[in-house]
Amino acid sequence: MTSSVSGPAPGSVGVVETRYMELPDGVRLDSGAKIAPLRVAYETYGTLSEARDNVILVCHALSGDAHAAGEAVDPVSESTRDGFRAEERDGAAGRGLGWWDGMIGPGKAFDTDRFFVVSSNLLGGCRGTTGPGSANSATGRPFGADFPVITVGDMVEVQRAMLDALGIRRLAAVAGGSLGGMQALEWAVRHPEDVDAIIPIASTHALEPQGVAWNAIARNAITSDPAWQGGHYYGTGQQPDGGMGIARMVGHITYLSADSMHQKFGRRLQDTEDVSFELTRADFEVESYLRHQAGSFVKRFDANTYLYLSRALTYFDLARQHGDGSLDRAVAGLSARTLLIAFSSDWLYPPSGSEQLANALTAHGRSVELHVIDAPYGHDCFLLEEARQTPMIRAFLGC
Amino acid sequence: MTSSVSGPAPGSVGVVETRYMELPDGVRLDSGAKIAPLRVAYETYGTLSEARDNVILVCHALSGDAHAAGEAVDPVSESTRDGFRAEERDGAAGRGLGWWDGMIGPGKAFDTDRFFVVSSNLLGGCRGTTGPGSANSATGRPFGADFPVITVGDMVEVQRAMLDALGIRRLAAVAGGSLGGMQALEWAVRHPEDVDAIIPIASTHALEPQGVAWNAIARNAITSDPAWQGGHYYGTGQQPDGGMGIARMVGHITYLSADSMHQKFGRRLQDTEDVSFELTRADFEVESYLRHQAGSFVKRFDANTYLYLSRALTYFDLARQHGDGSLDRAVAGLSARTLLIAFSSDWLYPPSGSEQLANALTAHGRSVELHVIDAPYGHDCFLLEEARQTPMIRAFLGC
Repeated sequence: MTSSVSGPAPGSVGVVETRYMELPDGVRLDSGAKIAPLRVAYETYGTLSEARDNVILVCHALSGDAHAAGEAVDPVSESTRDGFRAEERDGAAGRGLGWWDGMIGPGKAFDTDRFFVVSSNLLGGCRGTTGPGSANSATGRPFGADFPVITVGDMVEVQRAMLDALGIRRLAAVAGGSLGGMQALEWAVRHPEDVDAIIPIASTHALEPQGVAWNAIARNAITSDPAWQGGHYYGTGQQPDGGMGIARMVGHITYLSADSMHQKFGRRLQDTEDVSFELTRADFEVESYLRHQAGSFVKRFDANTYLYLSRALTYFDLARQHGDGSLDRAVAGLSARTLLIAFSSDWLYPPSGSEQLANALTAHGRSVELHVIDAPYGHDCFLLEEARQTPMIRAFLGC
Repeated sequence: MTSSVSGPAPGSVGVVETRYMELPDGVRLDSGAKIAPLRVAYETYGTLSEARDNVILVCHALSGDAHAAGEAVDPVSESTRDGFRAEERDGAAGRGLGWWDGMIGPGKAFDTDRFFVVSSNLLGGCRGTTGPGSANSATGRPFGADFPVITVGDMVEVQRAMLDALGIRRLAAVAGGSLGGMQALEWAVRHPEDVDAIIPIASTHALEPQGVAWNAIARNAITSDPAWQGGHYYGTGQQPDGGMGIARMVGHITYLSADSMHQKFGRRLQDTEDVSFELTRADFEVESYLRHQAGSFVKRFDANTYLYLSRALTYFDLARQHGDGSLDRAVAGLSARTLLIAFSSDWLYPPSGSEQLANALTAHGRSVELHVIDAPYGHDCFLLEEARQTPMIRAFLGC
């Protein structure tokens, strides 16, 4: 490869435009409902081989979108990258780097010199794929809370339909962190014949009850905001920014670790020598930071999408859905090679979940690798610890 | 002692009535503001010795009140006891047991056969002591958000004034858990000549940034509820129950441990065989439990009190307030014998805080004992693990 002065930075996939696809037949959902037609926002990086055998699907987490790598043609003003160092890293502001740009590109973990990487906005999303903010073809108005409750399995079926439309049947790998890792697991269980390998990172076969609780609190914060209006706030000039901000604050703290917060914030005060003795002022740096996070999130994300995706990741339970309550039975038919990565300080998706998966797969004689990376940043590690994940993923993919 | 069929249960202080005291001169606050007159709700258990040297002050935590022990004359319908086994233990419903009834009484940790135990509702409270819901003498209307921001030190000064009015100068001990333990520490630093011993339990010299964050989220949930109305909701027929419910949910999860939630709830569904595919239904037991906790809390607690007490415990920082940033300097003048109790699974007030205190006190040659109890219930342990705390406290108090 050659590069020119005006070309992309080394390792970058360059400037990328999100594309859109219509799926007139839509999909039948786990609930029995049907959504049709469907629209899917997606991006691709690298070149599809003639044999169409070099495809990696990367799946985003709760607040991501199709723009996983490269620079956006039309960057949104608020970064879509999570993680409490994301803003520092986006120093060259406005470039609109994808949420996993450090992992996708020439020579990176998902090496676009070899693989054709596909990323799409999830079903239920608010960044181009059909979701609760989309028009309901039956009424011409946005679905709002009439959007059907969806599952991780439904997200996978939409990805399956999208790939079919692209002429892609087999996947060399499915990879993702958090909710994205759940999709990778679901792919391998639902479509074992289509998936050669999966890479679930900082993920689990079923959220722990504490994680179920955090998600329930976040959803309750949104639905108890009067501006939510039973889910039908589109076009009313009001939206549940207050409740959504609270939901984001809760989420944010669960993505960090207590130690990393201690290191980053301590008990330092923000722009003041002493406490203010004002009831609602954000006196501490960490308080100010939370308000900032909430304020920027509500500008870029739809509250109903938050509700639906949170509900789906709370429902996700491989054992219940595919094993009649047994994780062992649920993974019996899984044939993909599996790379599991977890992080020591992740208390929302603790390494124990990955260990349970590894044990269940090992019991069936499957090929499984588990790496628990010792790192301090909590759940956000999957977005931050790119340098340490890269050699593990490259080796697993045979690069 | 003899007991009769109609007498109190063994170990109980019997039926107790909350009393009220007026303090016409009020107190000068750390902020410089003054509140006068003041009203204080309090209870006492046991008998004051002639020498007035057998007094133990117990201090409640964020959601407690003056009713620490015995049966209430007029029980409130919703239990004021925290802890996720509190309801089981209140099996004999309606008895209105005090929040630390297991610890205060004849033969108990705070033995009323020997000690005269005093408990009061905190400054800023909503259970009889002057707080934001009380009438502002300047206007005749409730303070609301015009109530001055208060500190743990201010709470101590009100207790000091109350004890003076009762004719009590010296305290054999000050004890409390969580925010109550902060008051014990503040007493020993502010009034070293008045305090023989302190027993801070599941407490700290300064909340960790993660704890600051949880408190900030809870307060933001309340203040972003339109029904809060800038803090002036009294008499409007509306109050911020939605935001307050979210605040309580957040608090509740931080009081438990992930392991205890796993044991208690797992991923069990509530009154349903399968997930409901309804967006807002509480499908999981833990979701239903959180809603129940929120619903009962808003019936018994005032949202503004929550704001003010949360602000005070977040501000509390012995090093900043009394040591110019140094914990070592802050405790240099503390002379009380100190018993610190912490719990292994308490991640909101982790044992590390108690260890830092113990080290600072030891460096000054002070008498300090630290016990870290290995128990699974998180911060709530201080209300649940009474049997294991009792011998430690009795021995420390020379019983």
